[in-house]
Amino acid sequence: MRMLVKISYHGGQFMGFQIQHHERTVQYEFERILKRMHRTFVRIHPSSRTDKGVHAIEQYFHFDTELNIAPDKWQYAFNSALPKDIYVQSVEQISDTFHCRYHCVGKKYRYKVYIDEARKVFEHDTKVQQKKPVDINAMNEAAKLFLGTHDFTSFCSQKTEVKNKERTIYQSEVVETDEGFEFIVTGSGFLYNMVRVMVAYLILVGEGKRSGQEIHKLLEERDRNKVPHTAPAHGLYLERIYLSEEELKEEFGEHIHIHKKNSI
Amino acid sequence: MRMLVKISYHGGQFMGFQIQHHERTVQYEFERILKRMHRTFVRIHPSSRTDKGVHAIEQYFHFDTELNIAPDKWQYAFNSALPKDIYVQSVEQISDTFHCRYHCVGKKYRYKVYIDEARKVFEHDTKVQQKKPVDINAMNEAAKLFLGTHDFTSFCSQKTEVKNKERTIYQSEVVETDEGFEFIVTGSGFLYNMVRVMVAYLILVGEGKRSGQEIHKLLEERDRNKVPHTAPAHGLYLERIYLSEEELKEEFGEHIHIHKKNSI
Repeated sequence: MRMLVKISYHGGQFMGFQIQHHERTVQYEFERILKRMHRTFVRIHPSSRTDKGVHAIEQYFHFDTELNIAPDKWQYAFNSALPKDIYVQSVEQISDTFHCRYHCVGKKYRYKVYIDEARKVFEHDTKVQQKKPVDINAMNEAAKLFLGTHDFTSFCSQKTEVKNKERTIYQSEVVETDEGFEFIVTGSGFLYNMVRVMVAYLILVGEGKRSGQEIHKLLEERDRNKVPHTAPAHGLYLERIYLSEEELKEEFGEHIHIHKKNSI
Repeated sequence: MRMLVKISYHGGQFMGFQIQHHERTVQYEFERILKRMHRTFVRIHPSSRTDKGVHAIEQYFHFDTELNIAPDKWQYAFNSALPKDIYVQSVEQISDTFHCRYHCVGKKYRYKVYIDEARKVFEHDTKVQQKKPVDINAMNEAAKLFLGTHDFTSFCSQKTEVKNKERTIYQSEVVETDEGFEFIVTGSGFLYNMVRVMVAYLILVGEGKRSGQEIHKLLEERDRNKVPHTAPAHGLYLERIYLSEEELKEEFGEHIHIHKKNSI
């Protein structure tokens, strides 16, 4: 049986999602529990691998099991054994042909920033501090220029190994909050560090140091050296995983041009 | 020169305030910076020593220095060198006869609880989860019975070493919040684990398992075994330190009976 698990986690004290040798990761916490229950190693397959310090409001993984345990009992078993910075929201049985990574057609991220000269210790690992004021309208205007299908070579880590760097952005906006602002971005997929490079550039636009209009040219140039910053990990939240085109159309309208999997 | 430093910190990743061998403490972070600046060891003296996991919205310490550095430069130097879960709110020069611990005449604590069957991962080290509903009015009524001067032997850790266990409580209330409730308590001083034992008892009252009216009898019995629980550390915040009787009278009225230092 293939089980689909929806989880959330606070990334502050994890070395990311994926197993690292001898380090605390989200994957390790689950595989440790599954190994104890199955008396053999069981691999989990996530929709997304978040980096050290990055949070997840919603994340999925699947695993295969021979154990005859009801979905709600799986949820209870996980939550009883997990540390308190991870929570299983739901477990369901799913088709054996379903794959969390291959069936993921979109992801939404949120990046949280507070604006204050004084450090907020109670947000130290959940929001990023911005000391200087920013022009949120200018940032939002600039964010909209990421919409559509582009090659994002200029806005990802130089360590990105994937060859095709074309992605489709369905939503890209900066909204004001009580404490500062949030950048919300939904796309067909994201390159390594892509959201953090985008938001670092948008903050420079907000501070008046770079122009939003440059974004078109930067995308065309496909040169990572032109956008030197990467914003810190602890402001970033994986907010939603889209496991079907229908979910994307429900949120963004029937008319949207869905990025086809074979082009990733 | 004696300098008075007002700080706040997120306690989640500290082994408490006070130096422990080879562990991360708030005191260690400051003494490390002071040692580097003075090229010799400089001791800091806090108003209160918080336990592992306990937070401080406001905490004070003082230290003596020969360095001729302006208060705002001290603040800048500390904040530049501190990790992001500690923040220096202010630094001022103070009389050489002032002592943070001996001149502390009161402390206010706040204990934060959310009520939800589902775990909130983003509050995992800042609020305590309460799964079952509670009667907040009953808790608030019971909390008021702690007001005044009592021997708190029944409501402290069995490890408490101090002999005189009489303390005066100026404020004791339970208030409803969006997510759950908070217990707010201000007193002349607190015994080891006293707030956490009080709140654990109040939660039993809220769940209908113990009666608020028992509190009078429990206080009189001076027997710690009658109140077996201690609530977790991560819901507890040191919120205010009162460094003079005037500050207490300003908040609680001229008429309050101030607990005299020699009775502690």
